Amino acid sequence: MKARIVVTLKTGVLDPQGKAIEAALKSFGIQEVSGVRQGKVFDLEVASDNREQAEATLKAACEKLLANIVVENYTVEIA
Amino acid sequence: MKARIVVTLKTGVLDPQGKAIEAALKSFGIQEVSGVRQGKVFDLEVASDNREQAEATLKAACEKLLANIVVENYTVEIA
Repeated sequence: MKARIVVTLKTGVLDPQGKAIEAALKSFGIQEVSGVRQGKVFDLEVASDNREQAEATLKAACEKLLANIVVENYTVEIA
Repeated sequence: MKARIVVTLKTGVLDPQGKAIEAALKSFGIQEVSGVRQGKVFDLEVASDNREQAEATLKAACEKLLANIVVENYTVEIA
């Protein structure tokens, strides 16, 4: 089944990349934006008959590799 | 209002980063995953009273800066 994992910085963690993007958007004339924060998204296929098992696999993937749980949150959505 | 922009590679565009992540997951013992593709997510605040106007602003942001529309797709979700 198809799944999407979204990894974002925790609230309070500084995001200089987001700040740079915000400044760039403003320099392009897009003034209405603020609080830009960048994260990562992973689209993947997981081989499993069972939704709970797939979710457990993907949580393990996040905790072991995809997210740094000290400074990042992750969400798992299974389609 | 809060918004999320997700930028992903178009189908058919090679994703060596996704392939590397998939190989790393397998080396960590997570064999069930395949077809890993990495994208970017931007969480931001857009100053607008009007949903359509906010959507137009964010589309402009994607086309001008956040996505390379030759090889990437984007989606805009307004909360």
